[in-house]
Amino acid sequence: MKQHIAGSEVQTKGKLAKFSSYLMNLKTTEEKNEALAKIAEQLLLEKEEIIEANKKDLENGKKQGLSDAILDRIMLNEQRIQAMVDAIHQLIELPDPVGEVLESFTKENGLQIEKRRVPLGVVCMIYEARPNVTVDAATLCLKTGNAVILRGSSSAKESNIALVSCIHRALEKTSLPVDAVQLIEDTSHETASELFHLKEYIDVLIPRGGKKLIDLVVREASVPVLETGAGNCHVYVDQSADYDIADKVVINAKTQRPSVCNAAESLLIQEDWFNEHGKKLLESLQDAGVKIIGDEKVCKVLPGASPATEEDYATEFLSLTISVKIVKDVDEAIDHINHFGTKHSEAIITNDERNAEKFLNRVDATSVYVNASTRFTDGFEFGYGAEIGISTQKLHARGPMGLPALTSTKYYIRGNGQIRG
Amino acid sequence: MKQHIAGSEVQTKGKLAKFSSYLMNLKTTEEKNEALAKIAEQLLLEKEEIIEANKKDLENGKKQGLSDAILDRIMLNEQRIQAMVDAIHQLIELPDPVGEVLESFTKENGLQIEKRRVPLGVVCMIYEARPNVTVDAATLCLKTGNAVILRGSSSAKESNIALVSCIHRALEKTSLPVDAVQLIEDTSHETASELFHLKEYIDVLIPRGGKKLIDLVVREASVPVLETGAGNCHVYVDQSADYDIADKVVINAKTQRPSVCNAAESLLIQEDWFNEHGKKLLESLQDAGVKIIGDEKVCKVLPGASPATEEDYATEFLSLTISVKIVKDVDEAIDHINHFGTKHSEAIITNDERNAEKFLNRVDATSVYVNASTRFTDGFEFGYGAEIGISTQKLHARGPMGLPALTSTKYYIRGNGQIRG
Repeated sequence: MKQHIAGSEVQTKGKLAKFSSYLMNLKTTEEKNEALAKIAEQLLLEKEEIIEANKKDLENGKKQGLSDAILDRIMLNEQRIQAMVDAIHQLIELPDPVGEVLESFTKENGLQIEKRRVPLGVVCMIYEARPNVTVDAATLCLKTGNAVILRGSSSAKESNIALVSCIHRALEKTSLPVDAVQLIEDTSHETASELFHLKEYIDVLIPRGGKKLIDLVVREASVPVLETGAGNCHVYVDQSADYDIADKVVINAKTQRPSVCNAAESLLIQEDWFNEHGKKLLESLQDAGVKIIGDEKVCKVLPGASPATEEDYATEFLSLTISVKIVKDVDEAIDHINHFGTKHSEAIITNDERNAEKFLNRVDATSVYVNASTRFTDGFEFGYGAEIGISTQKLHARGPMGLPALTSTKYYIRGNGQIRG
Repeated sequence: MKQHIAGSEVQTKGKLAKFSSYLMNLKTTEEKNEALAKIAEQLLLEKEEIIEANKKDLENGKKQGLSDAILDRIMLNEQRIQAMVDAIHQLIELPDPVGEVLESFTKENGLQIEKRRVPLGVVCMIYEARPNVTVDAATLCLKTGNAVILRGSSSAKESNIALVSCIHRALEKTSLPVDAVQLIEDTSHETASELFHLKEYIDVLIPRGGKKLIDLVVREASVPVLETGAGNCHVYVDQSADYDIADKVVINAKTQRPSVCNAAESLLIQEDWFNEHGKKLLESLQDAGVKIIGDEKVCKVLPGASPATEEDYATEFLSLTISVKIVKDVDEAIDHINHFGTKHSEAIITNDERNAEKFLNRVDATSVYVNASTRFTDGFEFGYGAEIGISTQKLHARGPMGLPALTSTKYYIRGNGQIRG
């Protein structure tokens, strides 16, 4: 049964989520997994209704002139619903972090202290476009004993309503509170603003989307934020780099999926290596369809390259464009990355163990690679089995976030009358 | 040598701190400990100058009519300087968390992934009154490979300048960058505001002080914040509570040091227990000098008790006042605590194992006690050897924060040309 409380949509749903979070945190792994299985089942039962609702979003999107790329992100079909269902079944198989005892000790005075993993409470996700995030976020939060408030974009509104209704119908058949999953249907700026300050009911806010969204959340929100996202990632080709490794890593990091945060946006090349192999590498990028904007040295040797500005070096293109700069040595590369990078994923191609160590230690980023593609920064690639997002901040979790990132800790202390002297 | 850069004080010192943080994160444990020892030595060498400077703060404070309690917090003497020095020597003995490998695995494709502890970078502390926080914060940050920006209060300005100059003179004799410790001398609101948004140079901001300061920081800051502090802590006396344990724990939690965040501010008593033992317990509190404000039932039986308002139940008195409320059972106690508490430290006195479990699981706080005083929530009492503060938020660290709370993590990934398929 849903409870009814008066107030604005955000206030009301915030309060319901908070209530439910106090029930959620007592649910067993078994109860939570059963509920996840029910959600998977219900998604298949209601797939036609979901696809119908999605069609409305696509029609609205076309009317509003959304690009084909965005329409494709919004689009749901049987295959994509099956993919959501498969992801839920994988999630069921993952260990439940809640309840894990992280520390346990008995003090001289007899106090028994345990540090246990507990759910965060209420997680709020603010996200753009893709409706599969709705199901992903809801199921990851339920698995970790949290309640969740979902605030998707207007472009996927009908799909999100259909998906969350479906989740609610599934939860009705389980021991989990239906109110543990809340969708804010009003997608105006006002509801986002209200969520930014809903400290009473929200324990953590996770924005997922473009740089503009994340910047807005970080600037405005007074609730704690888990910052995910923007990746101005570099590959630095060192003096001693093996040509073949440089070529395949750079091509992969740039072109395998240019629209994602762990794709490379900028290429730094040590000048001696550049003089010997640079033209060949850049032509290889051009052959792969990449547009090159570079510094003077690059433009001089490469027909078709355009000059790069300071701003270009700070830009996450998310497309087949790369900025290229020639540097004196690994130190200049590191300084450039620490200045222009977004602290996401950074790679060095080198055969020099000392430069590799220097790069690993001095580059300030979640994930630093030696002789491998930046594209591996991903919860699944790291083997975490699930991913809430990639944290680019330094608190709580850094890099790909698996289920433990959706938990906090609590000290359980048992005594028999101990007082402090 | 100090570097010189143009700009506002906050901008300039922020930049210097950031520069230094890239040097600090490479320093070995030995280098850092040597520097700490030098700081301890220099504090003793300069103790007279420091006490002289402190006298100016005390004189200014008296002129401004500061209370004796606050003047005592500001006051430095030989003994207190010796206490700072002793704390540094204890810090030297603690293990350095930086470099610890938290996870390590090799993927099927041969990628070797290590998750290592690394410094946060630049820590900014905004704090009130006590000048020993200046030395504490600086040495804790240096031990963990961070640079630190200190912004104390105007009432300890001269003391803080003397202490940081002393630290700088000590660092001149070491391999650590002098600029790793920055003091913002301008204690106007403008510098605090500027620090709240100095995202480019600050990795985490830790406010230490009263509720007003912390609320301001949480509301305003766009840099990541580690929230420490306010504690509206409860003791709940359950139906089955042992009288002697209830008496000694309540007295200890309320009176042993009423001005600190883990002191009890509110007492909840199960009604049957109250009918039998309540008056005796409350008189025992009165005998210990505690002023009681309570609900109707309390006021009815206890001469000298005043009526409590809703606001009183939400108040952190930090003095010898306690609010008292009679509740039906453990569930009502838990609901009251989750509504009025600040999620700091909460205790139940009970002989009922089921109610103990319920309380431990359902109360939403950093540290939940069964039959022991809330006063134990403390880094030293827990055995962490140092304390940056007590986190009352759920991200990163929760409860007493030791040295690991001043670190982040980074993935070190080594390959031989792996690309993503």
